[in-house]
Order: sequence, then structure tokens, then C-alpha cells
Amino acid sequence: AMDVAPPPSSPAGLSVYVAVSQLLGLTLLATTGAWLGRYRGGVAWHSPLQFNAHPLCMVLGMVFLQGDALLVYRVFRHEAKRSTKALHALLHGLALLIALVGIIAVFESHRAKGIPDMYSLHSWCGMATFVLYLLQWLLGCGFFLFPGASFSLRGWYKPQHIFFGISLFILSITSCLLGITEMLLFKISDSYSHFVPEGILANTLGVLLVAFGLVVGYVLTREEWKRSPLAEEMALSMDFKTLTEGESPGGGS
Amino acid sequence: AMDVAPPPSSPAGLSVYVAVSQLLGLTLLATTGAWLGRYRGGVAWHSPLQFNAHPLCMVLGMVFLQGDALLVYRVFRHEAKRSTKALHALLHGLALLIALVGIIAVFESHRAKGIPDMYSLHSWCGMATFVLYLLQWLLGCGFFLFPGASFSLRGWYKPQHIFFGISLFILSITSCLLGITEMLLFKISDSYSHFVPEGILANTLGVLLVAFGLVVGYVLTREEWKRSPLAEEMALSMDFKTLTEGESPGGGS
Repeated sequence: AMDVAPPPSSPAGLSVYVAVSQLLGLTLLATTGAWLGRYRGGVAWHSPLQFNAHPLCMVLGMVFLQGDALLVYRVFRHEAKRSTKALHALLHGLALLIALVGIIAVFESHRAKGIPDMYSLHSWCGMATFVLYLLQWLLGCGFFLFPGASFSLRGWYKPQHIFFGISLFILSITSCLLGITEMLLFKISDSYSHFVPEGILANTLGVLLVAFGLVVGYVLTREEWKRSPLAEEMALSMDFKTLTEGESPGGGS
Repeated sequence: AMDVAPPPSSPAGLSVYVAVSQLLGLTLLATTGAWLGRYRGGVAWHSPLQFNAHPLCMVLGMVFLQGDALLVYRVFRHEAKRSTKALHALLHGLALLIALVGIIAVFESHRAKGIPDMYSLHSWCGMATFVLYLLQWLLGCGFFLFPGASFSLRGWYKPQHIFFGISLFILSITSCLLGITEMLLFKISDSYSHFVPEGILANTLGVLLVAFGLVVGYVLTREEWKRSPLAEEMALSMDFKTLTEGESPGGGS
């Protein structure tokens, strides 16, 4: 009889957490849409409503898509590393594009209304997060997608990439919370303290953002849920290691 | 000749990062003090300045002391686990007490001025963080300080304690940033957008809070810097393991 490999299975619990994260992610988008649609007149480009594209794009790009990009190594744990990596880079790239649209929306809307840019803590945190996120994406592509980087260089960079990746995800959520607070104090400063529905809804959006961050963070940091190398990758990486360690110490280039 | 153990040394780099974290922590306190002293009239209890005790206590308790409590296992890596644990619990306890004073300050100052409580996203996040932080402290004492919990129960709870501990530290910093944004939009809403010194100073405090969080987070999550068990603890934990695993599966109490 031929050896038939059992179908690969995911660790118990992981699927539940991933499902909850996606449910939370969609709820985030729905809540943002409800806030902008119900209380802020909706979203449109080239109009006084252009500003509203900003929160929508940032929640979609910098939170939902960025979060999902972080999860791909856990969700597609039995796919080849190369395809998973490509998906990871693709989702982050898409997140960056959508965030860029959101940033253009706020700068254009400020110009149209004569409001100064970049004076608030929200703008400082948000812009720093976006620029560092772009840098992280470029470094990630350079180290892991293009064939130039050596095995040992990748090994050195990987923990840094992971730490800064999770940090930027947290900073993105923090920037969203700062943006919600700013927007509420600009738009409903008189009624916010009376527990009006818009205030409650926007606060709830903030709480949902934190919950999304916690669930994604839990999935990412749980030791048993980390992607282990596939059998063929193990063999390959050992070949690499032997090659690398077999080099003579002074043998450059 | 007798065997003389070499003096225990810390991993290279760790001391530098810890020193930077402490420098940042003190800068945080100085910046908070400068903001409140220079622009907000200073801090006093039973006076219209009572509110100002709130930011000062929260930054000192929920950020600086909480952060330092998280670092003790890295800094005192060659001390006995039991004393380090006691210091960890003590610092968190002190942080909780100081935070409680800060919370009382804001509620009393709201009452004196007739301002409603708990309507803002800052208050929701901050209060949730404080309550969960108190709960985490009680659970930590119950599982790790009192002798009741079994070896295997502690082993199950430890990763949860670490994940939620770091999460609460991040949420504390996020709540501070929300508080800074709120305070600026309440106090200097007209001049904030003109890059006045108070706005720049308070934004800088926000950036310093993020930097403190990043440095502490980096020290905590770097694999090589985790505290490894001392020789005598290894032996002890192996005895425990043998005892635990040697129990008959059905043999309860």
C-alpha cells in the first residue's frame, strides 16, 4: 500500500480566533460606514464630503488589510512559504495604496477648507506610522522577496521585521483612536458629553478597533500557532545551513 | 584550586536598551511636569488644579512604573525568581495605587466643575484598562505568589498573563495619547492648529510615550533576552515535573 499523508489540519482553536478576527474586521468596516453614512453625510470625492474618505480608507487599509496580511502565515500554514510570502506582501501593498488614498483625501479636504496640516498628535502618529509602514514594506520586499539577501542576513532581519510589523499594526490602531477622538471633539463637542448616539457609536468603533488588535495580536504571538516549516522546507533550509556554515570564515564574496 | 563561578553577566545590548528606557521614562515625567507646570498652572489637590494630578499620576503609574514592573525579569535576571516576582507584584501594586489617585483626581475635579463622567473614548479605554489591570494583578498574585496553584495550572496561565500584561501596557499608553489629544482640544482648541509651543510640547510627550512603549516592548519580546532559569531552579522545576507527570491520571486529591 502507498503511504497517504493525512490531510493537514490547523491547531485547535486557531480557526475560531481567525473567524472572530474576520467578523470583528467586517464589523469595524460596517461601523465606520454607519458612522459616516448616518451622521456625517456619507463619502464622496471632490466634494465637502471628501474628508470622510479618510477614516474609511484608514480603517480598511491600515487596520483590516494590514491585520489580515499579518495573519496569512497562520491561516495558510500548509501552503508553500513562497506563495504565502507573496500574499503577505500583496495585502500590505494594497493596504498602503488604500491608506495613500485616505491621506490624499485629508490633505485635499484641508486645502479646500483652509485648515492647517500636521499640527495634531493624531497627524504626527498617523504620518509616522504610514511612512515607517512603507519603509517596512520596502525592506521586507528587499530582504525576503528578491533573491539577493543571504540566508544569514534574512535570519538576522526576520525578528526585527516581526517586531516592527506588530508595532506598526498597534500604532495604526492607536492613530485611528486618536482620529476618532479628534473628529468627535471637532464635530460634536457640544453634545458629546451628553452621551448622544453618534458619540456612543464612534466610541464603540474605538472599542472594536482595540478588540480586533487584541484578537490578531493573540493569534500572532501564541507560540503553538506559529507556522512550522513544511517537510520540504526543513530539508532545504538544512541544505542552506550546511552551505552557509561550510563557508570558510574569511572567504568573502 | 576551587571552582569559582564567573560573575553573572547580562546579554550584550540589553543594558543599553534598559538604560535608554529609563532615560525615556524620566523624560516622560519631566515633560508631563513641564506641560502642567509651565502651561496648566501646576498641580494641587483640593483646588481648581486638581485635574492636573490626573495626567501626572497616570503617566507615572500606568506607564513608567508599569513598564518598569514588566522589565524586572530582564534586569534582575540573576536574582532568585521569588524575589524578582515579589518586586514585579510590588511595582504593579504601586502603579495601581498611584493610578487610583489619578482617577479620583479626575472624578472629583469633574464633580466640582459639573462636567459629566465617562462619555469619551479616552475614559472608556482608560477605565477598561485600569479595571483589567487590577484584575490581572489579582490573578497574577493568585496564580504565582500564593502557594495554592499547581505547577501545571501556572504553566497554563503564564503565557496568558504575559500576553495580557503587554496588551494592558500598550492600552495604557494608548489611553494617555487619547487623554493628551482630548486635553489639547479642550484647552487650546483655537491655537493648537497654529503650532503653539504648548501643542508641540504635548505632542512631543505623546511621541515620547510611544518611544518608551517601543523600547520596553523590544526588550520584553527579544528571544535571547528572556530570563533563563537559574541552575538551582532548573533542578527544582525538573523535580516538580517528575512529580506532576508521575501522578496517576485519575488520582485527584
